[in-house]
Amino acid sequence: MSKIIKVGLLGLGTVGTGVYKLLEKQKEKLLLKSGTNIEIKKILVKNKDKERPVDKSMLTDDWQEIINDPEIQIIVELMGGMEPAKGYIVEALQKGKHVVTANKDLMAEYGQEFFAEAESQNVDLAFEASVGGGIPIIRPLKQCLVGNDLTEIFGIINGTTNFILTKMTNEDVEFGDVLKEAQELGYAEADPTADVEGYDAARKLAILSSLAFHSRVTFKDVFVEGITKISSKDIEYAKELGYVIKLIAIGKNTEDGIEVRVHPTLIPNNQPLAAVNDSFNAVFVKGDAIGEAMFYGPGAGELPTASAVVGDIIDVARNIVNNCTNRINCTCYDKISIMPKDEIKTRYYIRLQVQDESGVFASISSVLGNQKVSLASVIQKQINEKNEAEIVIITHVVKEKQLMEALKLISELPIVSEVSSVIRVEDI
Amino acid sequence: MSKIIKVGLLGLGTVGTGVYKLLEKQKEKLLLKSGTNIEIKKILVKNKDKERPVDKSMLTDDWQEIINDPEIQIIVELMGGMEPAKGYIVEALQKGKHVVTANKDLMAEYGQEFFAEAESQNVDLAFEASVGGGIPIIRPLKQCLVGNDLTEIFGIINGTTNFILTKMTNEDVEFGDVLKEAQELGYAEADPTADVEGYDAARKLAILSSLAFHSRVTFKDVFVEGITKISSKDIEYAKELGYVIKLIAIGKNTEDGIEVRVHPTLIPNNQPLAAVNDSFNAVFVKGDAIGEAMFYGPGAGELPTASAVVGDIIDVARNIVNNCTNRINCTCYDKISIMPKDEIKTRYYIRLQVQDESGVFASISSVLGNQKVSLASVIQKQINEKNEAEIVIITHVVKEKQLMEALKLISELPIVSEVSSVIRVEDI
Repeated sequence: MSKIIKVGLLGLGTVGTGVYKLLEKQKEKLLLKSGTNIEIKKILVKNKDKERPVDKSMLTDDWQEIINDPEIQIIVELMGGMEPAKGYIVEALQKGKHVVTANKDLMAEYGQEFFAEAESQNVDLAFEASVGGGIPIIRPLKQCLVGNDLTEIFGIINGTTNFILTKMTNEDVEFGDVLKEAQELGYAEADPTADVEGYDAARKLAILSSLAFHSRVTFKDVFVEGITKISSKDIEYAKELGYVIKLIAIGKNTEDGIEVRVHPTLIPNNQPLAAVNDSFNAVFVKGDAIGEAMFYGPGAGELPTASAVVGDIIDVARNIVNNCTNRINCTCYDKISIMPKDEIKTRYYIRLQVQDESGVFASISSVLGNQKVSLASVIQKQINEKNEAEIVIITHVVKEKQLMEALKLISELPIVSEVSSVIRVEDI
Repeated sequence: MSKIIKVGLLGLGTVGTGVYKLLEKQKEKLLLKSGTNIEIKKILVKNKDKERPVDKSMLTDDWQEIINDPEIQIIVELMGGMEPAKGYIVEALQKGKHVVTANKDLMAEYGQEFFAEAESQNVDLAFEASVGGGIPIIRPLKQCLVGNDLTEIFGIINGTTNFILTKMTNEDVEFGDVLKEAQELGYAEADPTADVEGYDAARKLAILSSLAFHSRVTFKDVFVEGITKISSKDIEYAKELGYVIKLIAIGKNTEDGIEVRVHPTLIPNNQPLAAVNDSFNAVFVKGDAIGEAMFYGPGAGELPTASAVVGDIIDVARNIVNNCTNRINCTCYDKISIMPKDEIKTRYYIRLQVQDESGVFASISSVLGNQKVSLASVIQKQINEKNEAEIVIITHVVKEKQLMEALKLISELPIVSEVSSVIRVEDI
């Protein structure tokens, strides 16, 4: 075994470039920090001839050159997406190479398969950067908090939507306009679907819940709703009622199974998450011993994410040096069922367009009452001269299924012209 | 080696009892979590006959029974204080036993000695519980953030003083009264010196700074000032000026050396630490790659601290199972000087009692001006009929030494009857 641990880097986008820069900057200190020297040997890119701020001799467009290089012990996958990244990771593990990845898409869907392969080959699979950018969260869950039975993990884990919602809240602008601006600034991608529809957060929640509850949760288990339908009007009403709207990811280990959901959520103004703005992320953990703890920091970005990746590389290198790779691998020793969506219990914010006639509110509240939906707050406002009014309701806790049935009946009332918004409310 | 890893527990106070309970509760899961069974074999107490909620056959008042038991592989030191805890830890390490401790007093003074011993014996020394109670912070610094050059670490790391200051702020009561209440509630000890004088926070800061800056910082390096002189009047003025008073621990790695200090501090209302109340703790970290991250949670208490201790025990057990103890030991590979107190630069809040005569403020500001102390805010109020007034000043950044010289000159002015308060101000 070489005294220099050689790394093969897959992908040289934002995070890949950050990792390259950080390893260069830390060059002199890596031996002191990890007990060994660490060097990138090869970098897989699509186009070798593109101008890049790295040593050109490292670049290759041929995966075979990396996977078949016996000197390369750690593969750092930063390409993102499904294929070919998935195939490369599996092949690397099968060849006995350690893998560090920031790929939440893959970890949320194929974590179990990867871990089985890593375990059988006695190699490491590290993925701190897959959730919360630079925030230390994976390792604290696997190590520091392992003495707990964790009951909840929730937070803001998508920077793009938090940037958009923060701007909508502070500047009273609509979703479409902010999205366009975010795309121009590089905070949102050209195809923003994964972020704005909540898929990215749902993948990260699947990873966090698997770790927190020691039971495999995958992307498809998570109930997801994005932020595209949130209007500045809802944000205004929320303010009036003492709430802020955030895209919140919630994982709970309940007696009826694991509840996992990502959706726009009204949270109270004084909840610490209400103050997590722009592209920052924060994750709350609740457990029987710790009570609660919170981890806050930059949820994305070149260097913050590189911080997590390089932390992983150094930790894997320490394991190699100490001959104890595969020291902590898959921690999903339990098998807990996923709670069906209909069974989720929460509170709801509902905005309705109605005819401004006497008895309107009575009809609506009678429908809700029949469905056992009780009300916590109500605002009714005349919105124009045409005899139209807007009613905003916040309910007490109710099962999703019951609420949906009540909403169906309400939308059928002749005096209700539209159910404009339905947003969940959490007093977390 | 036994298939059950046996633990010797030293001390059965609040945290010791918590660790006992938590290991009992987790009994069935320890094998799944750590790869081995873990059991407490013996518990060292002063009085074996006292009624306690544990299996009595484990109790011993004889250290020799524990240290000479070859089955006991991990010593968990939760006695606190200096001796005999220090002697026990050294002896345990010398005998090749792994040590888990929550003892900040010892780690802040003898960390280097302990690590040298652990390294020479190839055993583990874990101390997650020594700072921030249950908050994961030691391991994130040693592992997740190791790719960074960290520049700052600061926060609220003493629960007792934060409880007292929170109560003083919310209920407009004086220090002495709140302290008495805190003692009655068990939030403060009978002898509260270590907490209220800032020594406890200074020890924790020494530990955090050593880890963050990879250079040994000990308790005696830290400039400390306690909260005993803070009056509700200062808290009121701070509010008026948009600040909250907290006991803040600050570590900075500057070009002029490591700056480490603990003192009551005015921080802006909108700084996240301003919202950390009661006995909660929070630690901010700044680094070249991560930018900033924050860790928040319960800073003390039976089960939160036990959460950290049990996390350490499980991690040491994993190292034993994987034959890689001493995997990460002392990380102080650097030797950076400590900045002398006089060189510290910060802003100051100063409250003065003066004669309410024309020209008073002119004389004071002229003295300050001569010493190159410039002013950011000023409040002047008549306080009684006897021609006495109070002046409150917030300065711009100035060196400690210069400020102290200016204060000496001001206190000698005939129109100044008293310099009532001098509190540092940080726009962290």
